[in-house]
Amino acid sequence: MSLTKSKAYGVIMAGGSGTRFWPLSRASRPKQFLPLGSSDEALLAATVRRLERLVPAERILIVVAESLVEETRRLVPQVAAAHVLAEPVGRNTAPCVGWAASVVAREDPTAVLAVLPADHHIGDEKTFTDTLAAAIDAAAGGDLVTIGIRPTRPETGYGYIEMGDEIAAGLHRARRFVEKPDAGRARQFLAEGRFLWNSGMFFFRADAVLREIAVHLPDLAKGLARFDEAAASGREAEEVKASFGTLPSVSIDNGVMEKAAGVSVIPGDFGWSDVGSWTTVWELASRDEGGNAFFGDVVPVDAKNCYVRAPEGKMVAVIGLEDVVVVDTGDALLVMPRDRSQDVREVVEALKRAKKPGHL
Amino acid sequence: MSLTKSKAYGVIMAGGSGTRFWPLSRASRPKQFLPLGSSDEALLAATVRRLERLVPAERILIVVAESLVEETRRLVPQVAAAHVLAEPVGRNTAPCVGWAASVVAREDPTAVLAVLPADHHIGDEKTFTDTLAAAIDAAAGGDLVTIGIRPTRPETGYGYIEMGDEIAAGLHRARRFVEKPDAGRARQFLAEGRFLWNSGMFFFRADAVLREIAVHLPDLAKGLARFDEAAASGREAEEVKASFGTLPSVSIDNGVMEKAAGVSVIPGDFGWSDVGSWTTVWELASRDEGGNAFFGDVVPVDAKNCYVRAPEGKMVAVIGLEDVVVVDTGDALLVMPRDRSQDVREVVEALKRAKKPGHL
Repeated sequence: MSLTKSKAYGVIMAGGSGTRFWPLSRASRPKQFLPLGSSDEALLAATVRRLERLVPAERILIVVAESLVEETRRLVPQVAAAHVLAEPVGRNTAPCVGWAASVVAREDPTAVLAVLPADHHIGDEKTFTDTLAAAIDAAAGGDLVTIGIRPTRPETGYGYIEMGDEIAAGLHRARRFVEKPDAGRARQFLAEGRFLWNSGMFFFRADAVLREIAVHLPDLAKGLARFDEAAASGREAEEVKASFGTLPSVSIDNGVMEKAAGVSVIPGDFGWSDVGSWTTVWELASRDEGGNAFFGDVVPVDAKNCYVRAPEGKMVAVIGLEDVVVVDTGDALLVMPRDRSQDVREVVEALKRAKKPGHL
Repeated sequence: MSLTKSKAYGVIMAGGSGTRFWPLSRASRPKQFLPLGSSDEALLAATVRRLERLVPAERILIVVAESLVEETRRLVPQVAAAHVLAEPVGRNTAPCVGWAASVVAREDPTAVLAVLPADHHIGDEKTFTDTLAAAIDAAAGGDLVTIGIRPTRPETGYGYIEMGDEIAAGLHRARRFVEKPDAGRARQFLAEGRFLWNSGMFFFRADAVLREIAVHLPDLAKGLARFDEAAASGREAEEVKASFGTLPSVSIDNGVMEKAAGVSVIPGDFGWSDVGSWTTVWELASRDEGGNAFFGDVVPVDAKNCYVRAPEGKMVAVIGLEDVVVVDTGDALLVMPRDRSQDVREVVEALKRAKKPGHL
């Protein structure tokens, strides 16, 4: 807690419902609840643990789908029940962040919010903590701050942030936010060195972000005002249930960060991963000398660079496989070459079309 | 029943305990109990059904491991309980055939035995039946007869029979039995046209084979005489239990057929397969236009020439797989390229070493 000079709250956005980790991820157990990093820890639990190096548990908020509140409380019981904010419906990140900012502002309007996605992996936690502390301090004066990841490949799957002038040690003006580029621009961005990956981590005082929301997303601001009113008479939950779905569905990036003046960015380099697919999960996992990551009872014969996950009590034998992913959850099984990880969505779509909700 | 002029008994040798179909085959459910042919019918059930075109059910005997007697009775209830002969221990095929011959000889010593393995697949059942009828008639005079399969490839995994002179239409002297050849000799055998695959199907009168056993396997003959004595006083089961394990462990091929004079062979050509591996099972299965054989709930994305078997209630997704076998039995799973089918044994060996009897 001594790393920052400022009083901060952690806000974890845990609303995701990805389909890329089927069959391990399901509607009832999305990615952030799964142990997809380098250990047995669920991604959300790891995010909370890392935040606790900077912020006491009682100042951590988690915004999550209503249906996942119980699971969230079980997973991270150190977070106050009142701080697990239940979204009745997903409306992208601006309403999520705005609501959390409103809740914090009632306690302390000048407190800094450290807003983090729930489902990322961090390889170098020490540097991560230091970078977050710097971002929190940079936001304490009222600026909007983000952390951009130094790119290591010409990735076309992320948005980018172009750095401008350095305004303090390690702190730059954010010149602009750039949508996902094509392959040519991504290579150019990587070569130029001024472009960072948009990591979705944001830092601002509660009053600062609410002020920007009032300017750029007035409909959201009105909705949040109704939440505040209802909260004053102990009826916030009912109001959220009734009107959350009417809030504008927009990201905090597009709705606020890209439009606000005076946004700054801190380059970060701490083994960040958004854990985007089974390929990444294999990369993050600890592997044997053959490059295999095995979980459960696995009998390998000539297996190389495979990811195999077996449920309790199951015996899985793989013979002559290379670069293959095998994920068995008991009621469902996925087998594919690792480079087809992006196509897991097709399976989920097929299950939806086939009306097989039991396996979604 | 009108196809043969002779009274015949069917004897099915169902003692196999193959490991090549793990995880579907287990110690408690070997290959002959599995639906590995072109339909849902277990191989043993299909063997009985085919025999019934020639022999009434009450003249069919099945020799099987003691532990599989119940399963056998359930699968083919039309076979008389007294005709399911329980081997307390496997002693190869000569004791098995000798015992069945003794049982038949007590009823009718001149009856012809049609001895068949339980676990083969027959593509052309009409021709098969006709060939068996011819073999039964050829054996009625007291000769030992076998059916040799016309080879379709230079197979090194089977023994061969060299045909000699044709002694009647379609009936040849068997010049000699040849052990599994190397690749060069197998190619030569295929080119020469006089060599047939030893299919393990034998036809002889009960008295004829018992006479040959007395000459070539006197220890077996003595053992069988003890069974006869015990049977006379209603104590055969006890005697078998006590002394079956002391009978010489030798095949009927090596112990009798190769040594006897006057063995003849009928060339057969009826889509025979010994269903030797998952590769063969894929070949026999009915496949979709992509060459896939799917059993159960399978969601394929770009799958080609795959064999996938899912247990009840399970959803199996395969993406981007070609020539891959996926067999899920609920408690065990096998994934391998089809051309590694021979290596399934290695998995079974590994499970034995790891002392995982639950999955064997």
